[in-house]
Amino acid sequence: MQAAVIGVGQAKFGRRTDASLRELAFEATRAAFDDCDGSIGIADIDAAITGIASDHFSQQLQPGALMNDYLGLAPKPNFRVEAACATGSAALRTGIMAIQSGMHELVLVVGAEKMCEVDTPTAVGFIGRGGDVQWEAPFGTTFPGNYAMVARAHMARYKTTKEDLARVAVKNHFYGAKNPYAQFQKEITVEKALNAPMISSPLGLFDCSPLTDGAAAAILAPKDKAKSFTDTPIWIEASAVGTDTMSLLDRETLTALPAAREAAYKAYDQARVQPKEIDIACVHDCFTIAEIVAYEDLGFCAVGEGKNLIRDEETYIGGRIPVNIDGGLKAKGHPLGATGLGMLKEIAVQLRGEAESGRQVDGTEIGLIHNVGGTGHYAFVHIFRR
Amino acid sequence: MQAAVIGVGQAKFGRRTDASLRELAFEATRAAFDDCDGSIGIADIDAAITGIASDHFSQQLQPGALMNDYLGLAPKPNFRVEAACATGSAALRTGIMAIQSGMHELVLVVGAEKMCEVDTPTAVGFIGRGGDVQWEAPFGTTFPGNYAMVARAHMARYKTTKEDLARVAVKNHFYGAKNPYAQFQKEITVEKALNAPMISSPLGLFDCSPLTDGAAAAILAPKDKAKSFTDTPIWIEASAVGTDTMSLLDRETLTALPAAREAAYKAYDQARVQPKEIDIACVHDCFTIAEIVAYEDLGFCAVGEGKNLIRDEETYIGGRIPVNIDGGLKAKGHPLGATGLGMLKEIAVQLRGEAESGRQVDGTEIGLIHNVGGTGHYAFVHIFRR
Repeated sequence: MQAAVIGVGQAKFGRRTDASLRELAFEATRAAFDDCDGSIGIADIDAAITGIASDHFSQQLQPGALMNDYLGLAPKPNFRVEAACATGSAALRTGIMAIQSGMHELVLVVGAEKMCEVDTPTAVGFIGRGGDVQWEAPFGTTFPGNYAMVARAHMARYKTTKEDLARVAVKNHFYGAKNPYAQFQKEITVEKALNAPMISSPLGLFDCSPLTDGAAAAILAPKDKAKSFTDTPIWIEASAVGTDTMSLLDRETLTALPAAREAAYKAYDQARVQPKEIDIACVHDCFTIAEIVAYEDLGFCAVGEGKNLIRDEETYIGGRIPVNIDGGLKAKGHPLGATGLGMLKEIAVQLRGEAESGRQVDGTEIGLIHNVGGTGHYAFVHIFRR
Repeated sequence: MQAAVIGVGQAKFGRRTDASLRELAFEATRAAFDDCDGSIGIADIDAAITGIASDHFSQQLQPGALMNDYLGLAPKPNFRVEAACATGSAALRTGIMAIQSGMHELVLVVGAEKMCEVDTPTAVGFIGRGGDVQWEAPFGTTFPGNYAMVARAHMARYKTTKEDLARVAVKNHFYGAKNPYAQFQKEITVEKALNAPMISSPLGLFDCSPLTDGAAAAILAPKDKAKSFTDTPIWIEASAVGTDTMSLLDRETLTALPAAREAAYKAYDQARVQPKEIDIACVHDCFTIAEIVAYEDLGFCAVGEGKNLIRDEETYIGGRIPVNIDGGLKAKGHPLGATGLGMLKEIAVQLRGEAESGRQVDGTEIGLIHNVGGTGHYAFVHIFRR
């Protein structure tokens, strides 16, 4: 890829009653500029790509225009991209395209979502409308229900257990507790997760990522100019996308996300690396089962063996491949349009060795982000190198 | 630009109770393939960009994924873009970026909107939420009201009259009546327009574009390969974007759209052409006043003289610069996400000399499309050559 990341930032994720959508975007963008060694400001930006997953949460149509205005970007080029829960990664990919096409040089990509404006049943209803509203949603499907089917299938086929799912939540809360930007900064136990209220069997409360307000941003520059803006650019080695059917019913498998495999295969090919060479990853744990499926889709283990990675603590720091050391979607939070760029911020910070105490993975050279939209309608995999 | 248009298509615009959002997208896409001299099919496409302006009309979140699925594109790369009423142009620009970046070769861009699912007050309310919902919409602003302010200011400053506005509607209905893809295929008179019910003074019913269901698509290829797919590629000479504040209150002028001027200036520069060299244009006449302002913003006449172009019938066939010979948004219809690509279809057909009887502009070499989002939050100008 002909683009590099020269600055990253995020607003604190959580229930942000103190900030509107545009203010969250500002908070993340200012942090990204602060991260650029003070070398540039908004006036230096040539174009922006905004990512917001839905008009529904804030009931604001054209939310990208609002962010563009508030950030003081006008009259510069800008439009919004959307790929469901992978919107942040779609913004990143579009920013890379913008630079690689020669159309722009310094590009701001900023993703945001304010999901806590509405109550939980309303929000879950909105998210359910990310399934096919003509042929699927009328039958009562919701996202917890869809991922519950994936979990049931995986448990039946590969002997994955509810304890394994709980272990994913425990790990992600363990690291979320050390991340000042995380929504939940509190550890939990396997027992607590197993005894939590059931949401959609077998998924309990701690198997589900929360509703989150948040934003994240990155500043991209042409590869050959990145060093003039920062001493520590992050090189983009791969940007890949896969897509799939809207409905799980139309898939050949429930125990994998084919779009994620497609994206992973292409990304490894572009970056010329093997899965075992990845030093740290952020994966899309919208539900705990999704993290286990991601281990397999990304080739971090053989198919059906995702459960062993978490049982053996191989995805903790010190293990074979540390995953979601920022707390993941589960504990850090999942503001749809910001999530992919929040992952990028984490990987950039880790590759530069700047993570908080107890969260830094030693000697990281190559990082990966895996960001899924819907139930795998979209999947984006990006690979970075320091 | 390093991309060319090798096929264009549209679904008939109108109140399409016979087709869902995905079916409209299919109709437009199939037409675009048919337009490619039968040289390629869906299997040849490397990536798609989908454009839908809002989740609200169809109450379908992730509508791009639905279209991607129904078109049989999975597992290919795809995401959705949005720039309000300029969404179709944002999809076009992203498609150009995708090719010019070297990331993809054959790219399908498809825009759609199904606005007639809800009743008119609901739809107008949704569109009003394209203004700032925190600081503007609560005071009752709607899009007709915003453009009414533009009209009032233009009338006060430049002596533009209600008759001038009516003349724009008369021209666009005149050509819409000859376009089998138009929503309204019926001529009107100045008297009929002036006597129509008032919507937002001074704008009456015939000053406003309708709510429309529709879709449009284009297939893009690298410039150097375009001739292998069709004998009549359309060359993309310029792709430019401007943006502006969300609220009219924050602008220095109400009588122009600064974002459109920004985009036009950049587009002419990229294409190395002067406004007077444009042979045909599609401009964003969401309201009749917007077409008169567009004449000025695009440099088709001096500032304040837009009224003269329409009074003197200079924007009819045979005039100085024929504009909206497809009926424009006013008569052809304005399905938000499809509009920009519908304009592209018209310009491609005109440049190839294939428009219907009474609608073909003779000897066209260079065509322009001007597509505005919101009240000029976004503006895209693209220039094409045959």
